[in-house]
Amino acid sequence: MARLAGVSRATVSYVLNNTSAVRISEPTRRRVHEAAKELGYVPHAAARSLRAGHSRMVLMPAPTFPVGPLYGQFLSDLQVALGRLDYTVVQYGGAGPYGDEAARAWAELRPVAVLVPGAGLGPKGVTVLKRSGARAVVTLGPESVEGAHALLMDHEAVGHCAGSHLYDRGRRRIGVLVPEEDGLESFSTPRLAGVRHALHGTDATVTALPLGYEEEAAARLAARWRELGLDAVFAYNDEYAMLLMRALHDEGVRIPEDAAVIGADDLMLGRLLRPRLSTVHIELPSGRDLAELVDHAVRDPGAAPETHKVLGATVVHRDSS
Amino acid sequence: MARLAGVSRATVSYVLNNTSAVRISEPTRRRVHEAAKELGYVPHAAARSLRAGHSRMVLMPAPTFPVGPLYGQFLSDLQVALGRLDYTVVQYGGAGPYGDEAARAWAELRPVAVLVPGAGLGPKGVTVLKRSGARAVVTLGPESVEGAHALLMDHEAVGHCAGSHLYDRGRRRIGVLVPEEDGLESFSTPRLAGVRHALHGTDATVTALPLGYEEEAAARLAARWRELGLDAVFAYNDEYAMLLMRALHDEGVRIPEDAAVIGADDLMLGRLLRPRLSTVHIELPSGRDLAELVDHAVRDPGAAPETHKVLGATVVHRDSS
Repeated sequence: MARLAGVSRATVSYVLNNTSAVRISEPTRRRVHEAAKELGYVPHAAARSLRAGHSRMVLMPAPTFPVGPLYGQFLSDLQVALGRLDYTVVQYGGAGPYGDEAARAWAELRPVAVLVPGAGLGPKGVTVLKRSGARAVVTLGPESVEGAHALLMDHEAVGHCAGSHLYDRGRRRIGVLVPEEDGLESFSTPRLAGVRHALHGTDATVTALPLGYEEEAAARLAARWRELGLDAVFAYNDEYAMLLMRALHDEGVRIPEDAAVIGADDLMLGRLLRPRLSTVHIELPSGRDLAELVDHAVRDPGAAPETHKVLGATVVHRDSS
Repeated sequence: MARLAGVSRATVSYVLNNTSAVRISEPTRRRVHEAAKELGYVPHAAARSLRAGHSRMVLMPAPTFPVGPLYGQFLSDLQVALGRLDYTVVQYGGAGPYGDEAARAWAELRPVAVLVPGAGLGPKGVTVLKRSGARAVVTLGPESVEGAHALLMDHEAVGHCAGSHLYDRGRRRIGVLVPEEDGLESFSTPRLAGVRHALHGTDATVTALPLGYEEEAAARLAARWRELGLDAVFAYNDEYAMLLMRALHDEGVRIPEDAAVIGADDLMLGRLLRPRLSTVHIELPSGRDLAELVDHAVRDPGAAPETHKVLGATVVHRDSS
């Protein structure tokens, strides 16, 4: 490359490493860059981050829960927004539950920031990440972790909304679907708790209804509906609501007369059902706001950890409740 | 760390770098590792890959298309399978369309293998990746790229299946929904072409029907249904099929009498619709098979690029067609 650019090897190294200690003229710099391009030279991010002490990499462990359309869109917006701020987002995949071992594996890539969706990272993991050079650790889940910024996603609020709505509609014997699929507990447990809290001290009862996402399971539940004596159900989300509504319909249970149904997520499919599905609209933080928060935290790594509540929940009342 | 382990700094470095040139006793090795653990030492993947010349990182650019449930499950299975083979999967996000510039950015992370979903990577990008140390480049899309292994996903077959099925059911004026959403062209274009190929030389006509994923757009299309004079529609996938079926139903168009409908993807929701939705079941390669192919390619980087057709398509006939 030095020969092609007509300069010394040291000059090539100074230019490509962007060394500021040595003054190099603009034309020389340009000749080196042109030669590098012609030869297909690619800088080594690893070497660069070793020199700089940090990278522009924002590491996100891939979620351990099945990603629905709402959350998928949120992740995608976030990646675009961080990309605009010149960060490279990498999703670190394949690991099991998060923990301190996982944090060590993430730390090996020396990310400048780590954004952890869901639960499981402990204070020890945060320390490992910070000691290895992460300037910001941000969790995105049900509770805050010592030493990390926290964006609290309070899924109790989703259940609370749904429970209050059904109560206000005059329902008193309220079922709550609890998906049996792995990885959804961190959403379903607080949603159930939220319904219980909303109805605490009233004359209403709350019944947990475990359900796998299968037609046969839904049919079995619908067959027991009358003996359960329920008059309403919070169906966890819109997809489970669709599954249950079909089974109740096939069983001759009228919606909303015999059973009021409310979902969550406000997906398109709820508007396509008949009766139209009532739902809890969930407001996630915008990708742009979150990207700015990460950037801010990276620029000021000494700042005290902040906690923000970021999940909004409001009922969209349609015909099924 | 040397002090804690009671050894020289050179010994610490030999042990942590796993240097084979110097013989170090097992107890000493153990003391160093224990001290490292106690001090929260995390090896630097960057430094390690600089020494080793390559990493265990499989890089996948994040897909540029909206990921549906079928593809999402496939990605997740693949990550787990590669994790079992001791690879770290990172999804590189945020970039726009793939191209040689994108390949340079990926190359900076010095992945040992790169797995590219969708189209856009060119032979130049493959060269950049290989020159920077990637032992295997595998594309997962509509066509093969010079120098890379190719897993061909032939979405024409999906359309071909659907078209033949509707023809066999006696339909002759066949509409094909074409989503207007960005990023879906690489699926919708070959699916439409597949229908045309299936019906080429017959007395059937094929009409492309652009449609956005919105209730109002579907209602407008349904309102024109009778003047279009169609008797069947391949609805791109099950979600679009649900949208269109609802609009046709509201317009009084009977399914399948006035319009046979077939979707694709074989999602649960199709079984929940009434009439039950006919669909094209799409068979993607198993995550395990694909992980093994990647591993094989990494171990034998000199092997000639291989091409495999990996997408299977079969009709699941239900009540809507």
